[in-house]
Amino acid sequence: MSKGRLISFEGLDGAGKTTQMDLLERWLRARQLSYIRTREPGGTPLGIEIRRLLFQQPELALTPLAEAFLFQADRAQHFETLILPALAEGKLVVTDRCFDSSIAYQGAARGVGTARVEQLSLIATQGHVPDLTIFLDLDPQQVQQRTDLAQDQSGKRDEVSRFDRESVVFHQRLRETFLCLAQTHPERIKIVQATRSITEVQQEIILLVEQLLMKDSKIV
Amino acid sequence: MSKGRLISFEGLDGAGKTTQMDLLERWLRARQLSYIRTREPGGTPLGIEIRRLLFQQPELALTPLAEAFLFQADRAQHFETLILPALAEGKLVVTDRCFDSSIAYQGAARGVGTARVEQLSLIATQGHVPDLTIFLDLDPQQVQQRTDLAQDQSGKRDEVSRFDRESVVFHQRLRETFLCLAQTHPERIKIVQATRSITEVQQEIILLVEQLLMKDSKIV
Repeated sequence: MSKGRLISFEGLDGAGKTTQMDLLERWLRARQLSYIRTREPGGTPLGIEIRRLLFQQPELALTPLAEAFLFQADRAQHFETLILPALAEGKLVVTDRCFDSSIAYQGAARGVGTARVEQLSLIATQGHVPDLTIFLDLDPQQVQQRTDLAQDQSGKRDEVSRFDRESVVFHQRLRETFLCLAQTHPERIKIVQATRSITEVQQEIILLVEQLLMKDSKIV
Repeated sequence: MSKGRLISFEGLDGAGKTTQMDLLERWLRARQLSYIRTREPGGTPLGIEIRRLLFQQPELALTPLAEAFLFQADRAQHFETLILPALAEGKLVVTDRCFDSSIAYQGAARGVGTARVEQLSLIATQGHVPDLTIFLDLDPQQVQQRTDLAQDQSGKRDEVSRFDRESVVFHQRLRETFLCLAQTHPERIKIVQATRSITEVQQEIILLVEQLLMKDSKIV
């Protein structure tokens, strides 16, 4: 029985997570590796409801603390009903965001406190952390340009989150927190420069995933 | 400026909380005391959404931990946007359930752990606890009889919660936890025998509320 692995993608909205997760998925399929692609929030039926409360109902005027607890409710359901069973079956789980986002968004940028949010997250994940976290790093001003460009090209985006409307200062604080987390957990969190071409970024990510899989040769 | 006070009603479903809160409300109005009546979950627009997820969507199959975090999200929003501002204005706040319910339901009966849930609740309330908690005590088998009777008389209840469908063993565990909490916090949590007549129960509650208000003579 191979050992499951949890890979999380982190980064500001617009840093290219979706594109890179698509490419990784193609790579995993080509190698016939058993994987699940999921996201936080929204990886379970409960998560979809919570995502709606968080991003589509601004009239609820969530406090930072209420928001932090909602993310943890999503995460608790996600880990217990989807991620942990998949890992137990030896699958790779690739998630668009995981608890580092909570630490950065609610903990630092919204002021709930990074230590507090980390503590809540570890309760929600039953002590589990990702085996590999890929942080797609980009300067917030570049993210803004990319997002504007994407919106110009595609018309309106389906889901304009509250986060999209935040200031550059807010996003700078997010980025600093992610970089600080990467410094604290260098074995787990890898900073990938997202300013380069899609192919260059992809190659670096594949290398990191290969290294992770080689640590547990049974899965490759 | 008078000092606000928070009064919570606790007890198993069917113990008579709504009836007694109605009577207390009438008493407060007659004395022209400034008060707010609210409930957990559901005291805010977010809370109403969370209540729906908890009680009206059994297909979500919430894990105990996800459920615990949802109650805390409700509570965090409730305290910050409604309870704490009302207390700061010197109002009485009367709430149908507060964090002792979380300790009993999620902490003990659902197995998340009472210490853990208490810790989460204190984060959600920003360290605040009720000034007076009235625990309407009734043997679970008597609650069952009352609830059945009420359902027979009124036809179907609007909201049949998951909790209503739990076993007598589950409710015994709840009751034991409430009694244990009352023993740990005798100054705050008062056990009121709910087997007596509505008027007798009401008189005892009024007495407890008067004692609370006398502690802060400015409000009476």
